[in-house]
Amino acid sequence: MKIGFIGLGIMGAPMVGRLLDGGHQVFANDLNPIQPEILEKGATQVSSAKEAAEMGDVIIIMVPDTPDVEIVLFGENGVAQGLSSDKIVVDMSSISPVETKEFAEKINARDCPYLDAPVSGGEVGAKAGTLTIMVGGDQTTFDKVKPLFELMGQNITLVGDNGAGQTCKVANQIIVALTIEAVGEALLFASKAGADPAKVRQALMGGFASSKILEIHGERMIKRTFDPGFRITLHQKDLNLALSNARKLRMALPNTAFAQELFNSVAAQGNADLDHSAMVLALEKLAEHKVCE
Amino acid sequence: MKIGFIGLGIMGAPMVGRLLDGGHQVFANDLNPIQPEILEKGATQVSSAKEAAEMGDVIIIMVPDTPDVEIVLFGENGVAQGLSSDKIVVDMSSISPVETKEFAEKINARDCPYLDAPVSGGEVGAKAGTLTIMVGGDQTTFDKVKPLFELMGQNITLVGDNGAGQTCKVANQIIVALTIEAVGEALLFASKAGADPAKVRQALMGGFASSKILEIHGERMIKRTFDPGFRITLHQKDLNLALSNARKLRMALPNTAFAQELFNSVAAQGNADLDHSAMVLALEKLAEHKVCE
Repeated sequence: MKIGFIGLGIMGAPMVGRLLDGGHQVFANDLNPIQPEILEKGATQVSSAKEAAEMGDVIIIMVPDTPDVEIVLFGENGVAQGLSSDKIVVDMSSISPVETKEFAEKINARDCPYLDAPVSGGEVGAKAGTLTIMVGGDQTTFDKVKPLFELMGQNITLVGDNGAGQTCKVANQIIVALTIEAVGEALLFASKAGADPAKVRQALMGGFASSKILEIHGERMIKRTFDPGFRITLHQKDLNLALSNARKLRMALPNTAFAQELFNSVAAQGNADLDHSAMVLALEKLAEHKVCE
Repeated sequence: MKIGFIGLGIMGAPMVGRLLDGGHQVFANDLNPIQPEILEKGATQVSSAKEAAEMGDVIIIMVPDTPDVEIVLFGENGVAQGLSSDKIVVDMSSISPVETKEFAEKINARDCPYLDAPVSGGEVGAKAGTLTIMVGGDQTTFDKVKPLFELMGQNITLVGDNGAGQTCKVANQIIVALTIEAVGEALLFASKAGADPAKVRQALMGGFASSKILEIHGERMIKRTFDPGFRITLHQKDLNLALSNARKLRMALPNTAFAQELFNSVAAQGNADLDHSAMVLALEKLAEHKVCE
């Protein structure tokens, strides 16, 4: 299949690598020069998002945030200018669900289907092709693109109509942040009360308190290994999506707001580039106690 | 082994059943008459905690709260009056870690070892003998009592010295409450944004957001099955332990405090006897939206 791919960053580049390994033709566009190893694998560098859209039957976008997607789609020499009927636009960036619905409508108006398909699993998952992919769009388009998704990920779900993929990703980031907070308060309490947090974590792993976060991020809090992983700055972006969309939707997310403030407090300590498990540093400041020294 | 057992309520009665099935002699004491099926299995009813302590080599306590344990141990005709050297006192109630240390010291002063050994897993786990048991005390005493624990539970951990078992249980209840909150906000956001919360839950089950709570309590929120399970009133008791101990220890648990307020809000709706997954009812009030109708 001919694929236009826009955004070959930390996530995009290995995803393109997986598509090339799968035998597909990739027309790659990025603000920076395309990585030599990607060109060696057979990708063709193109000069604009428009050209990527002209060359590809499926156009995949993987850029940082909502305004970036808007520029890539509708800016000068953007994807929209290179589209013709029935080309499929797939936004795999993690952006606003509300704006995603608007973008999809504008692309649909050009007789092109649109999928929002954000991922979780990070750089490791992108390289290994084990990303979780949460998709919004129609079943027919999903079925057409699924073979490409299967090269990049494993847990692939059509969640609903356009916007539902982004909504699901935001829900994922809410749960992850708030569960980090849960594990942080619990281990901090245990430590302050004089128990060994490592043994507490172990005792809790089999029961109702068990989670991926207790397993992985709990261990990071105990071992003080806060190298990313997933940076706090990126999780702040995602919680901002949650909170700004909640405001637009007219609903309250009180603890998501508080989790964001904890991230802000870690940033105030100069630690915004640590792994998100370092949210515990803000709880430790509030408690004047550390999970472990 | 000869076991004195005080407190044959919803949890204690099936635990005694397991001990009797394991071939042990049980001297049972409760404020209410002992259940006929327990007597038929061979338990001997005794008239006081003191008598249970006189008859047993190991004395197990399973009562609701800290003041109840204090009365059972040190009240008139209490356990302490029936103790002689080397009898082992095991408190399996879920009570305050700070007071537990005081109780243990007073029992130790009578030449008797003490274990705090609270459980999680509920009535279902008590009947099936699959409780998680979190133990505080010394290794020698733990090893002596372990065969009894193994009749009642599966995931059995010596967490640390006296108090560490109760501390671990409190940590468990903090994580469970705050993860319920996490799942509640995420599913509520997804629903309000127009996605199907059941599909969102499914899509999230494989990734970093996965937890027992997403699996079980998430489903309860979607299906609106709020029959207990574990009652909000009981979880309020446990979070009160967390918050009052945190105050004594001089530390902050901001989101545990907020989770308690959400339980209080559900109680304000007249729903304190629902399952703790019904915490989502308070979030729904704040958002003027339901996860599902």
